[in-house]
Amino acid sequence: MKEHPIRIVGFDPGLRRTGWGAIDVISNRLIFVGSGLITSDNNVDLATRLLQLHCGVMGVLEKYEPQEVSVEQTFVNKDAVATLKLGQARAISLLAPAQRGLPVSEYAPNAVKKTVVGVGHADKKQVQTMVKMLLPKATFDSEDAADALAIAICHAHQRGAKAYKIA
Amino acid sequence: MKEHPIRIVGFDPGLRRTGWGAIDVISNRLIFVGSGLITSDNNVDLATRLLQLHCGVMGVLEKYEPQEVSVEQTFVNKDAVATLKLGQARAISLLAPAQRGLPVSEYAPNAVKKTVVGVGHADKKQVQTMVKMLLPKATFDSEDAADALAIAICHAHQRGAKAYKIA
Repeated sequence: MKEHPIRIVGFDPGLRRTGWGAIDVISNRLIFVGSGLITSDNNVDLATRLLQLHCGVMGVLEKYEPQEVSVEQTFVNKDAVATLKLGQARAISLLAPAQRGLPVSEYAPNAVKKTVVGVGHADKKQVQTMVKMLLPKATFDSEDAADALAIAICHAHQRGAKAYKIA
Repeated sequence: MKEHPIRIVGFDPGLRRTGWGAIDVISNRLIFVGSGLITSDNNVDLATRLLQLHCGVMGVLEKYEPQEVSVEQTFVNKDAVATLKLGQARAISLLAPAQRGLPVSEYAPNAVKKTVVGVGHADKKQVQTMVKMLLPKATFDSEDAADALAIAICHAHQRGAKAYKIA
């Protein structure tokens, strides 16, 4: 019986830059599909920036048609203004897949690192190296896109071999 | 020359409860149109809650067709988790009107109180009393709906007598 691939899109949310990464999973095999960056213009008002991010996130979902979406949990830090900005950007990465009826899983940054690198306190460089090992054909032009691929890989591992239910 | 009323919808964003209030402005006259509460179910995941808020906010905009929208700026406090939740909810009140091409103005809580009550540190009760004085026909079943009307009134005052441009 031929197995259907599951497509997962991961998002690393940020108001200025939201990274995205798409992979296919067939049994235990991971295949790179695409990655990139959605940006917002910091010279326009916040409502317009959120609209720019929403259009970008929706565009990725429409183009790559994932069955499941994975989003990094926001790192709550002491800088309340930064936390607020991140929260606002993150809402967009959660809302857009929900609008398309897709299940959204959330993973803490340490869970992503632990799954992909093996340790919770891996640095950006280690994450990128492991993403390249797990997805040899992967290309990414930014840290955020590499992180988004790691978030997608994390979900692929966490979800296990659960088959995609065809409605 | 007959003046066209300007309709303003104000939002007081929150993840559990987002208040809304609609008013019409004709010259210096304010007319109560409606108010209410959009809620999300705290037993479902965050993406679904944001979707519930988005449907509610869009529903208000579709029903009342404002020309301008006013949203309370988030009060950044020391509780980072609360700040994050508020930021996520707030993104929805900003995104939805932007998706409909409406201008969105943001006002700090103290600016709303100062405009409506005359002092920046007015309590909830004072705000509600002034909302009732400025909009005698207003009904509101919650603090959040009363706050949302105050946010709409604040915008009416701040925007001044600027006429609505008919495209």
